[in-house]
Amino acid sequence: MKILLGSGGIRTEERRNLFFRLMKENFEGCKKVIFIPYASGDYDEYTSSVKEMFNDLEFEIIGIHQCENPLAELENMEGIYVGGGNTFSLVKKLHENKLLEIIRKKVLNDGVPYAGVSAGANVACPTMQTTNDMPIDLVPSFETFDIVPFQINPHYHPGGIWWKENEELNEHFGETRKRRIEEFHNYNDTPVIGLYEGSFLRCDEEGVELLGNKAAIIIKGSEIKTISPEMKINYDLSAR
Amino acid sequence: MKILLGSGGIRTEERRNLFFRLMKENFEGCKKVIFIPYASGDYDEYTSSVKEMFNDLEFEIIGIHQCENPLAELENMEGIYVGGGNTFSLVKKLHENKLLEIIRKKVLNDGVPYAGVSAGANVACPTMQTTNDMPIDLVPSFETFDIVPFQINPHYHPGGIWWKENEELNEHFGETRKRRIEEFHNYNDTPVIGLYEGSFLRCDEEGVELLGNKAAIIIKGSEIKTISPEMKINYDLSAR
Repeated sequence: MKILLGSGGIRTEERRNLFFRLMKENFEGCKKVIFIPYASGDYDEYTSSVKEMFNDLEFEIIGIHQCENPLAELENMEGIYVGGGNTFSLVKKLHENKLLEIIRKKVLNDGVPYAGVSAGANVACPTMQTTNDMPIDLVPSFETFDIVPFQINPHYHPGGIWWKENEELNEHFGETRKRRIEEFHNYNDTPVIGLYEGSFLRCDEEGVELLGNKAAIIIKGSEIKTISPEMKINYDLSAR
Repeated sequence: MKILLGSGGIRTEERRNLFFRLMKENFEGCKKVIFIPYASGDYDEYTSSVKEMFNDLEFEIIGIHQCENPLAELENMEGIYVGGGNTFSLVKKLHENKLLEIIRKKVLNDGVPYAGVSAGANVACPTMQTTNDMPIDLVPSFETFDIVPFQINPHYHPGGIWWKENEELNEHFGETRKRRIEEFHNYNDTPVIGLYEGSFLRCDEEGVELLGNKAAIIIKGSEIKTISPEMKINYDLSAR
């Protein structure tokens, strides 16, 4: 089992370099990687830009929407990469195209490497319920791949936010991520990893390794703990 | 028809005073106002705090969850106030308790005054799709009261955000509200009002009046226009 999950916000040179290195390692030995662009509004455009981005790496990117028979293609796939965008749109399509079970089986039983960034990290979790996205598409259920036993909140940041207008910063009083995740924990016990931008989780049989930036470990009823890059944790989010 | 919709973020003395004045005017002549606390995790506590907040006003607040027969109570209600919290939890309960149609009828046909803040403003719109909340509850449909013909994005702010840690501000690269609302407009034509915190919309037969703070007028395919408090607009969001 080989899973790479990224928060997104990969906008600096340093973050981009780390992303390329981790993607290269994650899909080492793969010739073809199936790309799932369903979180975006334009599958062709998104797939082209991802192809271009990974042009220098060994594997070829194939958009799942361009396959004549996606389920047959998935049976033979060597790697799966799920891109970002809107998680509701992504989950709706995953259910419609009946991709949950086959991808779960491929990753967990057959060891096919998986990578997902932002919405693609959300759907690696048991449910999509810790997404930040707007509900632009109705989903039949919140169920997602469930290939890791915790929830991820991508683009995580602690506390309140400020927004800028005419170079002046204004405090915003909307709900913090902490408050939103507390609301999630009103109904659910699953632990949550708040992934700061530029952070990645590398998961294998041993457990989880954090790379790139910090993460918040949010366990129902406990104080939030912030962990640093290079830290290794177990699947129950305890220190390793 | 008498509808008051607030963005939330009512955290300054000035914003609070405006909120009290507008609530007083909105529910003038009402003895009892039904309060819908379904967006919160604790209906009793939320209802008590709202009762206390409006203690000095003329009307009495009655929590809908404390009514023996809510539908009968709603038939005789003089005012409806829907509080904030999680929009998914609120919408789930509104559907479960079959409250959409009766409240729509009361407000549009019988002129019963309505007030809603944050999630309570979201549900006044045709759908809940421009909420910022986390999907902690599965809803059977996004349909909401549809008592105004536009969507509201509460707690709106333009452009990117910054978050503070150890007095240092960090830029955040997650999707902006503009981007999220563009995604909504990929599938929908309904115009959106981005309501800055501290803003209110007062709606009657004539149209809509903005009070307290600014608002962004977001029409599919057009440049975003920002309007100032005291501005009056028509229901198609054109200037009045």
